[in-house]
Amino acid sequence: MAKKYEVALPVIRRLPRYYRFVCGLISEGISRISSKELSLRMGLTASQIRQDLNCFGGFGQQGYGYNLEVLRDEIAKILGLDNLVDTVLIGAGNIGRALGKRIDFNSVGFNLVAIFDNRDDVIGREIGGLVVKNAEEIDEFCKANNIKAAVVCVSDKSAEDVIENLISLDINIFWNFTHYDILLKHQGENLSVENVHLNDSLMTLRYLANCD
Amino acid sequence: MAKKYEVALPVIRRLPRYYRFVCGLISEGISRISSKELSLRMGLTASQIRQDLNCFGGFGQQGYGYNLEVLRDEIAKILGLDNLVDTVLIGAGNIGRALGKRIDFNSVGFNLVAIFDNRDDVIGREIGGLVVKNAEEIDEFCKANNIKAAVVCVSDKSAEDVIENLISLDINIFWNFTHYDILLKHQGENLSVENVHLNDSLMTLRYLANCD
Repeated sequence: MAKKYEVALPVIRRLPRYYRFVCGLISEGISRISSKELSLRMGLTASQIRQDLNCFGGFGQQGYGYNLEVLRDEIAKILGLDNLVDTVLIGAGNIGRALGKRIDFNSVGFNLVAIFDNRDDVIGREIGGLVVKNAEEIDEFCKANNIKAAVVCVSDKSAEDVIENLISLDINIFWNFTHYDILLKHQGENLSVENVHLNDSLMTLRYLANCD
Repeated sequence: MAKKYEVALPVIRRLPRYYRFVCGLISEGISRISSKELSLRMGLTASQIRQDLNCFGGFGQQGYGYNLEVLRDEIAKILGLDNLVDTVLIGAGNIGRALGKRIDFNSVGFNLVAIFDNRDDVIGREIGGLVVKNAEEIDEFCKANNIKAAVVCVSDKSAEDVIENLISLDINIFWNFTHYDILLKHQGENLSVENVHLNDSLMTLRYLANCD
């Protein structure tokens, strides 16, 4: 699909937060809000909000504010949440298991269809309604089901092998919990990667705490 | 403690990555590296690396590159990793349990000393060597042990109550896995917060995948 908007990544990263706030307001029974009121609730300036949403065409009506259901649906469409991508999860250790149980993939644009592990005592267990498959079946399953996205929660030691194999299987969307730097070897290729480096986040927090 | 360096947050956020790479190189038996070689391995430019490390005084010797053990120890000192902060974890659900088991807090500047939950079937369970305590004991424990840091993995519904209570107990360092926006109510206060919004990360990934 062609890039629809040329929007800076910091703006993109704010969109999920808008989405969360808007969904929260709707569940409070609110149907319309001014950018001023929204800005107070989100701790952003009203002009920042107008500027952000204008990157995608803007949805406010001068003097009337935003219709929240329209705004929610438009943000969902921009993010692609209405179009679920079949996804596999590799590595059902502590983190993988927690993600499989807790994350509502369907609500954020993904459809978790299989979980794999290579340990005998993990294969066959049930996680979030899925039975953990043997990692030996990854290639066949991904090809047969045209899988394009993977959540990777394997150990750092096996991360490179696992991820390079997934790339060879044409998987190009990665939610990466390992320290393997996927884009370093694949610069300029058509890969979408979000890294969640929990240790890095904690070290940053430790630094911030030191500075206060 | 006074702010030692006035360094931009993007530079700070790269430090844990330097730290990881440097530790990896040391474990490969390498003791010295040029900024050029380090840059190739990290996918940054050599001048970027020199610039980043110069923010903290720089550690390279012209023509000799970096002594990796010195670099590792200096980065650890800058981040504060050598000075462990006693920390509690609140909420031993799927994510909290995974963090308690998998994260090596001691290696990143924190010392996990207690885990709390309010569910009868969770209290008393063992997680990473700690027995889950009753959430009713949070106030007494934190005061008695002068706790300053908390990992918060409770449900979004109870997040505000739990976090506001922790703030009233003088806890000011938060690793926040809930959607509660801590700084919104506490702007200008002396709080250090790192948010890990897993859903937001997935939504961003969904957007990136849409654009390719």
